[in-house]
Amino acid sequence: MNFERLLKQVAFIHEIDKVKYILRKTRLFNSDRNENDAEHSWHLAIMAIILAEHANEPIDILKVVKMLLIHDVVEIDAGDIFLYDTEANHTNTEAEHKAAERIFGLLPEEQAADLIEVWDEFESGETMEAKFARAMDRLEPLFQNISNGGGTWKEYDVRYEKVLEKKSVIQKGSEHLWEFAKELIDESVKNGVLTKSAH
Amino acid sequence: MNFERLLKQVAFIHEIDKVKYILRKTRLFNSDRNENDAEHSWHLAIMAIILAEHANEPIDILKVVKMLLIHDVVEIDAGDIFLYDTEANHTNTEAEHKAAERIFGLLPEEQAADLIEVWDEFESGETMEAKFARAMDRLEPLFQNISNGGGTWKEYDVRYEKVLEKKSVIQKGSEHLWEFAKELIDESVKNGVLTKSAH
Repeated sequence: MNFERLLKQVAFIHEIDKVKYILRKTRLFNSDRNENDAEHSWHLAIMAIILAEHANEPIDILKVVKMLLIHDVVEIDAGDIFLYDTEANHTNTEAEHKAAERIFGLLPEEQAADLIEVWDEFESGETMEAKFARAMDRLEPLFQNISNGGGTWKEYDVRYEKVLEKKSVIQKGSEHLWEFAKELIDESVKNGVLTKSAH
Repeated sequence: MNFERLLKQVAFIHEIDKVKYILRKTRLFNSDRNENDAEHSWHLAIMAIILAEHANEPIDILKVVKMLLIHDVVEIDAGDIFLYDTEANHTNTEAEHKAAERIFGLLPEEQAADLIEVWDEFESGETMEAKFARAMDRLEPLFQNISNGGGTWKEYDVRYEKVLEKKSVIQKGSEHLWEFAKELIDESVKNGVLTKSAH
């Protein structure tokens, strides 16, 4: 056995334990407890398996699951950025790229290269797999906010128009799920948990 | 779109949020915070992807990942059973089967049947995929206990012989990883974080 190679793999396995401490703004279903990135990634991976049939085109589900399991690992160094943060840069920041190099770089060389590529593909959002994975990432907090009577929408005064804009990327992964998401968003306005901007 | 079908899938996605509240006995790496089943399942799924090359025979990694992501979902109803619990029945209990029927049964019929089959395969531990998945399930708490100066071994007075017996199932999934695990267990005795029984 190549012991040195295994030790690199174990070092990575140790390092990513830190993902369990990174708290998101959104909270668990019907709860005031913040979700952490490991729980979030687990949930999205199962969602992708269950909802794969709704993708606009056939997808490589193993690729999607890999993307979702590792998509937030860079936040160990770079931190979580809230979807509705208007100041922070959301994708492909310098800090995130450095984090990817350092953390995936703990692995044997070709495994590091593979996961950096998968992470990059997710971030770029251009392939069908990345589009579907990103749809999952938008869908879970929508469910969570609705279960929490508005959740982060109320907490951070996020309005209907902004939610619709941010969530519309679901469409790129799945027209079906976007149709469903739009209904949920419209219902949220009717139920008073989401507010339209005054014009 | 088949709306009724989607609503069943969403009901399942909601239900499994409860996995995030099920606490294991083991604690996070270098920590006194108990790990929950969602974090645990996430970690095992990534471990399987990273360590797949060490399996005794080639494995269907998507199958392994599915197993690991859903293996603890039944604990929503049946609760977590500690590996070193000497009284509880550890596999395929009546309560676990009922839980699988109820929880996976929220899904559309053929998806429910598929996940019950995957869960059953994991529990039976007979296929190469199940053996490798079960090896991951034994390996993570070994790493955690070592990082925590003995962890649950000290807390529940579990001795070397019992650890070796319980961990030996790693061998069925991976001789490589078992060789490594044995070294870690032996080192733990030398380092005083694990004790041999007096004879």
